[in-house]
Amino acid sequence: MAYDTYKLLRVVREGALVTAVVDAPPINVITMELFQELAALSIELEADPDALVFVLKSADPDFFLAHFDVALLIAMANAPAGPVGDVNTYHEMCARYQRMDKVTIAQIEGRVGGGGAELSMSFDMRFGVIGKTVINQMEVPIGILPGGSGTQRLPRLVGRARAIEIILGAEDLDAETAEKWGWLNRALPADAIDAHVTALARRIASFPPGAVRAAKRSIETSALPLDEGCRIEAELFQSVLFTDTARSQMQRFLDLGGHTREGELRVAELSAEVARPG
Amino acid sequence: MAYDTYKLLRVVREGALVTAVVDAPPINVITMELFQELAALSIELEADPDALVFVLKSADPDFFLAHFDVALLIAMANAPAGPVGDVNTYHEMCARYQRMDKVTIAQIEGRVGGGGAELSMSFDMRFGVIGKTVINQMEVPIGILPGGSGTQRLPRLVGRARAIEIILGAEDLDAETAEKWGWLNRALPADAIDAHVTALARRIASFPPGAVRAAKRSIETSALPLDEGCRIEAELFQSVLFTDTARSQMQRFLDLGGHTREGELRVAELSAEVARPG
Amino acid sequence: MAYDTYKLLRVVREGALVTAVVDAPPINVITMELFQELAALSIELEADPDALVFVLKSADPDFFLAHFDVALLIAMANAPAGPVGDVNTYHEMCARYQRMDKVTIAQIEGRVGGGGAELSMSFDMRFGVIGKTVINQMEVPIGILPGGSGTQRLPRLVGRARAIEIILGAEDLDAETAEKWGWLNRALPADAIDAHVTALARRIASFPPGAVRAAKRSIETSALPLDEGCRIEAELFQSVLFTDTARSQMQRFLDLGGHTREGELRVAELSAEVARPG
Repeated sequence: MAYDTYKLLRVVREGALVTAVVDAPPINVITMELFQELAALSIELEADPDALVFVLKSADPDFFLAHFDVALLIAMANAPAGPVGDVNTYHEMCARYQRMDKVTIAQIEGRVGGGGAELSMSFDMRFGVIGKTVINQMEVPIGILPGGSGTQRLPRLVGRARAIEIILGAEDLDAETAEKWGWLNRALPADAIDAHVTALARRIASFPPGAVRAAKRSIETSALPLDEGCRIEAELFQSVLFTDTARSQMQRFLDLGGHTREGELRVAELSAEVARPG
Repeated sequence: MAYDTYKLLRVVREGALVTAVVDAPPINVITMELFQELAALSIELEADPDALVFVLKSADPDFFLAHFDVALLIAMANAPAGPVGDVNTYHEMCARYQRMDKVTIAQIEGRVGGGGAELSMSFDMRFGVIGKTVINQMEVPIGILPGGSGTQRLPRLVGRARAIEIILGAEDLDAETAEKWGWLNRALPADAIDAHVTALARRIASFPPGAVRAAKRSIETSALPLDEGCRIEAELFQSVLFTDTARSQMQRFLDLGGHTREGELRVAELSAEVARPG
Repeated sequence: MAYDTYKLLRVVREGALVTAVVDAPPINVITMELFQELAALSIELEADPDALVFVLKSADPDFFLAHFDVALLIAMANAPAGPVGDVNTYHEMCARYQRMDKVTIAQIEGRVGGGGAELSMSFDMRFGVIGKTVINQMEVPIGILPGGSGTQRLPRLVGRARAIEIILGAEDLDAETAEKWGWLNRALPADAIDAHVTALARRIASFPPGAVRAAKRSIETSALPLDEGCRIEAELFQSVLFTDTARSQMQRFLDLGGHTREGELRVAELSAEVARPG
C-alpha cells in the first residue's frame, strides 16, 4: 500500500495510522476527480492489512468538503442514460468507510455540506471546531435531495425530527448544536482539535488490532435485533478471548495494577499502558 | 380545500403554508369533538395538493393540548363493546400527520400532555418555549398507559431509558430538558418562537415542492435497514434530479455564486435565493 | 421471596420497592461469586409478584461495579472447553433485568466499567453523580471486547459514533458527558442522588402495578416496526383500560381536579395524589 497515486489527497502513513489531507482548491468541491480519489482511497485502505485507524482532514481551514459538484449534477440531469450509476458508487464508497475493519475519523475544521456531509456521516467518528465547523444540506432548495445516503444516515445520527429540520430547512448547523444533537462526537476549540484527534487516533492504533477490528464489527451488528446481535457478539468475543494476545494483555493488566483500587481509579491510563509494548 | 368546517380549529392558508390554531377552552382537552376535527383536518391536509407545510399552534398560551378526554375514556372503559375502535383511529390520525407529503410542525408554547403529547410526537418537528413548555404523560398514575402511540414514538424520540422515565415517572418534563433529550427540536424564548417557526415554515414552503416531498419520503424510509433505505433514496434522488425544476434550480445555484468561496460561506442564504422566484 | 441468600448484596424490601446494595470489597469486581448473586437476584426479582421497582446501588462511593473479573477471564481463555457458556448466562442476566415486569434503576455513584457498565446499560434507568460517576470500557486495550452485551446496548444508548468512541477509545466518560450523550438519564449532585432516586422509585411503586407493567412491556415493543408496535400497544391499552382500577383511578383524577385549569397546571402532583391510597 503505497498511497502514492493521489493528487488532491495528501496521504501519510505512520505505523497503523493513515492520515489524508484533502487539498482541492478553491473550496474542496467533490468534483469527479476528487470523488474518484476518495473512492480509490477507501478501496486501498480497506485492503491494507496494516492500517488500523484513518483520519481525514482538510488543508483549507474554512472548508472540509463543500459538497458534490453541482455542475456535474446538472450534466447528469441532462443525460439520464449517462453516469446515473454513480449515485450508487457514492453509496458504496460511504459504506466502505463505515464497514472497513479500520476506525475512520473525520476531523472537520470548517464547513461541510451536501455530499461532503454525507461522506462524513459514514465515518465512525466526527470531530469539529467550536465557532467554526458548519454543516449544511443545501440539496432541497436547489431542487434535489441528499442522495448520497444523507436521508438514511442523518436520521440515524440525530433522530428523525432534527434530520427533517436539517434537510428540509437547509439552514446552517453550528458546531455546538451539532455536538448536542450527536452529529459531531465532540466540538473542540480550534487550537485543540488536531492534538485531540491525533491523540485519540494514536491511542486506538496502539491497541491490539484483532480486538479493535472485532469490536468495530460487533458494534456494526447492533442494527440487528438485540438477541441476534448478542449472539454474534458472543462469537466475536470468543474469537478474541482465546488468543495469546488477549491472554498476555489481560495478564499485563493484572500485573500493572488491575483489580487494585489505585490501578482502577486510573483505568484509562492503565489500559493504555497495557497496550504499549512492554 | 376550504378548511372551513372546523369550530375548535382556526385554519388559515397562505400559499403552500397552512396554519391551524386550536381554540377549545378552557384548556384544549382533546374531547371527541376536537379529536374529530384534528382527524378531519389531517385528512383534508393530506388530500390538499397545494399544501406543503402545516403548523399547529394554540390560542391558549398555557395549554397546547391538555390530553385526551378522561371522561370519555371512562365511558369507553364502561362500555367495552363501544367505541374501542377509536384507539386505532387515534393511531391512524397520528400516522397521517407523520406520513403525509407535507412537513408538519407543532409550535408548543404551553403544556402538552397525554394524547396531546402523542399527537405532537407524530409531527415532523416540535418547537417549545424556554421556561413555559411542559410535557407530561399522566396515563400510568391514573391506571392506563399512553395508548395513542406514546409507548412507540417516545422511545424513538428520546431513547428507551428516558421514555421509561417520562412514562413511568409521570413527572413534568421542562422545555430545556426536552430539548436536550430530543423531544423538542429546539426550545426558544417566548417572544421568539412565533417568528422562528413562521420563518422556518415559510422557508420550507418556498422550496421546490417535489424535492420537499421526496426528501421527506426518503427520510421516512430510514427506519428500514440501511442498504434498503439507500436503494429507495437512490430512486427518489433520480426522480427529482431528472426534472426541469432541478435543472433550473441547480443552474441558478451556480449563477448566484455556488462553487465560489463567497457564495458557499453563505450557502444557507444562497440556497434560499435560488428557491425564491427570480 | 425472602431475598436472604446473598452475601455480597444487601437486599431490602419496602412494599413494592426492592433495593440491593453491592458490597464486595475492595472495589466491587464482578467475581464469579458476585456474578452468581446478581444473576440469582434477577431470577428472584423476576419471580416476585409483589416487587414493582428495583434499585441497585453500591456500598463503595468510588466504585459501583469495577468490571468482570479479569483473572477469571484469563482462566476462561486458558480453558476454551470450560466455562465458555458463561458468556451467554451474562447476556441472559442482562436481558432479565431489562425485560422483567419491574422497573430497574441503577444508582451509579462511583466508577462503573466493563461488564459492570454492560449490566447497568440493561437497566431501565441510570442515574449518576456530577463530578464523580465515571464510565470506562477497558476491554479493547486489554485484547478483548465488551462481550456482555456492550457492543449491542451502547450504540442503542448513545448512538453508533459515540459507542465507537467509548469502546475503541477506552477513555473515561465523565458524568456530565454521559448525561449529554444519554448514557445516564440524569447526572445529579452527590448529595441529591439518593433522595432523587428514592423519590422516583417510591413514586413509581405507588402507581397501579398493572399499568406500570403494561406500559413497560409496551415500551419494550418499540424495537419493532412502528405499526406493529402500535398494534401491541392498542392491545395492552385495552388490557388496562377495561379494569376496575383504571375506572376508579380515572374517576379520582376528575374528582381531584383533572380537566380544570388549576388541576392541570399541577398535573404531576395531581396524578400522584390519584395513585395515593385515598
